[in-house]
Amino acid sequence: MPNFSGVIAPVLTPFGEDGSADADRFVEHCHWLLEQGCTGLAPFGTTSEGNSLGIDERMELLEEIIDADIEPEILMPGTGTPSLADTIVLTKHAVEIGCGGVLVLPPYYYKAPSEEGLYRYFSEMIEGVDEDDLKVYLYHIPPVAQVGFSLSLIGRLIKAFPSVVVGLKDSSGDWSNTAAILDAYPKFEVFPGSEVFLLDGLRKGAAGCISATCNVAAGPIRKVFDNWTTPEADDLQAGISAVRKTIQSYPMIPALKAIMAHFRDDPEWAKLRPPFTELPSAEAEKLITELKSKYNFHLDFDDEEDED
Amino acid sequence: MPNFSGVIAPVLTPFGEDGSADADRFVEHCHWLLEQGCTGLAPFGTTSEGNSLGIDERMELLEEIIDADIEPEILMPGTGTPSLADTIVLTKHAVEIGCGGVLVLPPYYYKAPSEEGLYRYFSEMIEGVDEDDLKVYLYHIPPVAQVGFSLSLIGRLIKAFPSVVVGLKDSSGDWSNTAAILDAYPKFEVFPGSEVFLLDGLRKGAAGCISATCNVAAGPIRKVFDNWTTPEADDLQAGISAVRKTIQSYPMIPALKAIMAHFRDDPEWAKLRPPFTELPSAEAEKLITELKSKYNFHLDFDDEEDED
Repeated sequence: MPNFSGVIAPVLTPFGEDGSADADRFVEHCHWLLEQGCTGLAPFGTTSEGNSLGIDERMELLEEIIDADIEPEILMPGTGTPSLADTIVLTKHAVEIGCGGVLVLPPYYYKAPSEEGLYRYFSEMIEGVDEDDLKVYLYHIPPVAQVGFSLSLIGRLIKAFPSVVVGLKDSSGDWSNTAAILDAYPKFEVFPGSEVFLLDGLRKGAAGCISATCNVAAGPIRKVFDNWTTPEADDLQAGISAVRKTIQSYPMIPALKAIMAHFRDDPEWAKLRPPFTELPSAEAEKLITELKSKYNFHLDFDDEEDED
Repeated sequence: MPNFSGVIAPVLTPFGEDGSADADRFVEHCHWLLEQGCTGLAPFGTTSEGNSLGIDERMELLEEIIDADIEPEILMPGTGTPSLADTIVLTKHAVEIGCGGVLVLPPYYYKAPSEEGLYRYFSEMIEGVDEDDLKVYLYHIPPVAQVGFSLSLIGRLIKAFPSVVVGLKDSSGDWSNTAAILDAYPKFEVFPGSEVFLLDGLRKGAAGCISATCNVAAGPIRKVFDNWTTPEADDLQAGISAVRKTIQSYPMIPALKAIMAHFRDDPEWAKLRPPFTELPSAEAEKLITELKSKYNFHLDFDDEEDED
């Protein structure tokens, strides 16, 4: 029985007018994502601008969503930083408040670390956190972090910490890498970092996907997950892949926030923390027009209307 | 009158047996570096494994050295992190306890940020810190951080914050880049990130150097700085360049710590925080032998002997 499976959103982080993280919009977005079909939430991932948030901000936001009745068991917050000390602080905090898992980047400041160095980092991290309930998901995203997890490092960590190192998000964008991990470690919970690989992944034993686009397309992605053994699976997959490809032809995080701002009719949702900048409005309009005309794309926010 | 000039060491951070930062050895090393001829200290740089330290660890260590009677005016701690929020916390703390400057990395998690995004990051950082005494030194180290400062970004920041953005450490390893910055912004305090470029830099208006090797060779480097207008300058420069080239033919940070461990006769000095690993002992012996035989290299620690 896996700890996590299905459709997990790396939750976008909304910012207020003063640039601070907006806890109200964040909580609202988490609830809405679960209604849309997400089976889990991964706050403070790359898409969340998680690495642009402070240590304290991350812990406070996590407490906010748990206080707002989101079950901690479905949360897999990003807790990896370049610093072993800060990573231990964030990880211990996440486990102590009940999070079902943590998604941990390798230390990514120093480039080309040795396998032994990364092994020691994770060993010391796990020993430093010292919590029986710790479930670590390795976060492999070499296009951004530059530092990644080799097949042999993954194997060493699974062997040394079989009940702790239980899965991996593969955002390499390289299906052959995902396939190699699934072949080598069949019981490992592997999540491709894009829904483009969801059906191929499920057919090979993947646990689901953790993908940026789940922030605006969780429903159709969930449909693939629920129907992957049925005859319509390939058609459903083709549909979600097409939407993904349209969105990722724009800068991904600004594009997702522009989509949220448009359909929520809330321009502030488009705000990003530096070093990101908003999608220029002409680009945002082009993206929305393209999504509507090609895919009849629409997002509903009934709850909010009910509350008015 | 520049805020900083001369020979600045990015101070190595010693670690104790349990992996925690060793404040006693750290303070001792800072005092010794100043005796050796350093004009300033830059704790928590790349060489310091600064990005492997936690936010709290950095603030505590900084307070320790000031409590140990190191003048805060000569301190230029590294305060840059991927997070705007944490960078503001560290920078404000450094200014409040009197540090003469701060050395600030660009946010380095997200790759290929726009110039506008980096400009906004530094603008919001400076406004967020909101201290009249803030002096920012931009930390340009693209081989590690991947994200750097273009000539035009430097110009925008100087123009917008002329009394705050006062200098830059150029660890690009590319002399033509250092020369271009010196040409474009003659009053800017530019420090090459290696003493290999010290004499060329001084002749072109550089303020000195901030270099890893200052941890073990501050005396001879200072001699170049003090004598750069004299006939023997080129010979002195050739001497320090040769030592640098020998050391950097090994992994730099492990090599420097191995040198400290050897000459202090203190094996614990060789410890590094993951993802770094110690220089294998055969390599360390080879390096020490090479330094001794080629350059009659030696480090003295008279103070410690006196205390015995």
